[in-house]
Amino acid sequence: MPRIMNNPDDIVDEMLNGFLKAHADIVEATDNKRVVKAKNIPADKVGVVTGGGSGHKPAFIGYVGKNLCDAAAVGEICSSPTAAAFLDSFKAADQGQGVACLYGNYSGDNMNVKMAVKMAKKQGITVKTVVANDDVASAPKEQCEKRRGVAGEVLMWKVGGAKAAKGGNLDEVIAAAQKAIDNTRSVGIGLAPCTLPAVGHPNFEIKPGTMEVGIGHHGEPGIAVCKLENAAEMAKRMVDVVVPDYPFEAGDEVVALVSGLGATPVMELYVLYDEIECLLKEKGIHVYRPYVGNYFTSMEMMGATLTLMKLDDELKELIDTPANSMGLKQN
Amino acid sequence: MPRIMNNPDDIVDEMLNGFLKAHADIVEATDNKRVVKAKNIPADKVGVVTGGGSGHKPAFIGYVGKNLCDAAAVGEICSSPTAAAFLDSFKAADQGQGVACLYGNYSGDNMNVKMAVKMAKKQGITVKTVVANDDVASAPKEQCEKRRGVAGEVLMWKVGGAKAAKGGNLDEVIAAAQKAIDNTRSVGIGLAPCTLPAVGHPNFEIKPGTMEVGIGHHGEPGIAVCKLENAAEMAKRMVDVVVPDYPFEAGDEVVALVSGLGATPVMELYVLYDEIECLLKEKGIHVYRPYVGNYFTSMEMMGATLTLMKLDDELKELIDTPANSMGLKQN
Repeated sequence: MPRIMNNPDDIVDEMLNGFLKAHADIVEATDNKRVVKAKNIPADKVGVVTGGGSGHKPAFIGYVGKNLCDAAAVGEICSSPTAAAFLDSFKAADQGQGVACLYGNYSGDNMNVKMAVKMAKKQGITVKTVVANDDVASAPKEQCEKRRGVAGEVLMWKVGGAKAAKGGNLDEVIAAAQKAIDNTRSVGIGLAPCTLPAVGHPNFEIKPGTMEVGIGHHGEPGIAVCKLENAAEMAKRMVDVVVPDYPFEAGDEVVALVSGLGATPVMELYVLYDEIECLLKEKGIHVYRPYVGNYFTSMEMMGATLTLMKLDDELKELIDTPANSMGLKQN
Repeated sequence: MPRIMNNPDDIVDEMLNGFLKAHADIVEATDNKRVVKAKNIPADKVGVVTGGGSGHKPAFIGYVGKNLCDAAAVGEICSSPTAAAFLDSFKAADQGQGVACLYGNYSGDNMNVKMAVKMAKKQGITVKTVVANDDVASAPKEQCEKRRGVAGEVLMWKVGGAKAAKGGNLDEVIAAAQKAIDNTRSVGIGLAPCTLPAVGHPNFEIKPGTMEVGIGHHGEPGIAVCKLENAAEMAKRMVDVVVPDYPFEAGDEVVALVSGLGATPVMELYVLYDEIECLLKEKGIHVYRPYVGNYFTSMEMMGATLTLMKLDDELKELIDTPANSMGLKQN
């Protein structure tokens, strides 16, 4: 894998240096070099924090910005941030109204967030959490607390960030973000794996000519390995996993988010979205707002994810709120 | 190359279907299915048009939008749009004040734009052109009319689109866009090639463990093939090609645009930008505005390009003008 890097051990620090320089209008550094915070956080608002491993751009730091997250904790490639980084993110985001920590269901993140929440409490900062679990393929519905968080996290941040920006108190922000993720389902299809920079070869396999339905961002096993299908067939597989699980039904209005996994050309995401939108239309499901692009990736992994979120009036208003970050700019 | 597509012959049409659905707030279809136009073009402004082959997302249709291009002609993968598509783009963009066609220096585009300009004249539409030639590596400075247009085109569209939005007449829009590209220099480094969907294998080679400095978006030969270097060395190579050519000098204020070529993770672009910014700073060159991301790609090619544009007061104002398109959203 030909990479643009120096010492692989320094890639996260160097990436952060470049990120902070490139987006100095939106974000700034903190004393903890693994914490990025938004510039000009309005006073008296609830703080919104996220965090996760690196290599998933725009996630996670790409969603720090106006009306989105106020701070993010940064981990090594595909590894959770430390508890200290989460704690310092809480401190960076806290405006005296408490902090909503909106993150994904991975064991390392769970452990470190829990420790950080306890430490924050001792320091007088109230932190409440929402744990994203939108990945349908990662566990049966009856065990949805075991499901991973994937690209649905972007919608959780959008909703939670907008609720905080509109003056919601901590419980209201948490309730809105929880509703966002409760109304959200995702599935991914992997076409080619990615390589950890310090390792130099993929740590999971997708055999050429095959694809894996339901695969996670780190190669976590999916629900089916089959021969590579065409876009129409892939779209049908995704819709057939996501739609019945919630279930989304005729008359529903949804956000549809199609994200590339990294190296799949954006052109192909539009081909996929065209198929998905047709299938949803056939079912009477109306896409109120589409997002198509690279929203939550895994380095140079190939493939795509589909995320649907059922909307109500509150979620529509929060999804429509303007936002400005590296990963999401919306007027 | 595992792709998300149906029949490769349909990929452009299907991509356009998805693109128009995903960005219906910004763009709309026209009677010519290979022409995309901006929604709600203000009356009485100069029309701004571009066009080029597909596979370079966000270029070219991703720069159709508010204060950018008003229409774009769409070609097959890596092939020029037809003269008819350029002509219909002129018609779609024309508000009675003439049209500025801002495109890149490729033989197919040159031929088809020239034919379309003649046909437009017969129909009473005045079209003037600026031909981007920012790729330093594609010909010596004395033969700069032979140089290709690459990611510098994004800055030409930004400047020309803003000048038209601010009420500039056709000659003023052309002059601003020409100044933008005259002040701009680019170079690319290729790390891995891309594959035409209908062909199924790369039509050019970058040997594993090597990189090609100055390679074009379609694998056009560069100025040096060498062993894969680290980010600091790559940054130095790019700066050493681009800076002396213009030349950029101590005290200059510039736009620095670092674009991925497609499959290189965005994380690595930040690592590269960090190095580039340091090198420019050492030379006394100040980055007034950075752009880092996937602005002009070539499907799943790996590598990056560096573009610098020397600024004056007019260019600063035009670069700072808000814009809204799929590929460029700026407040």
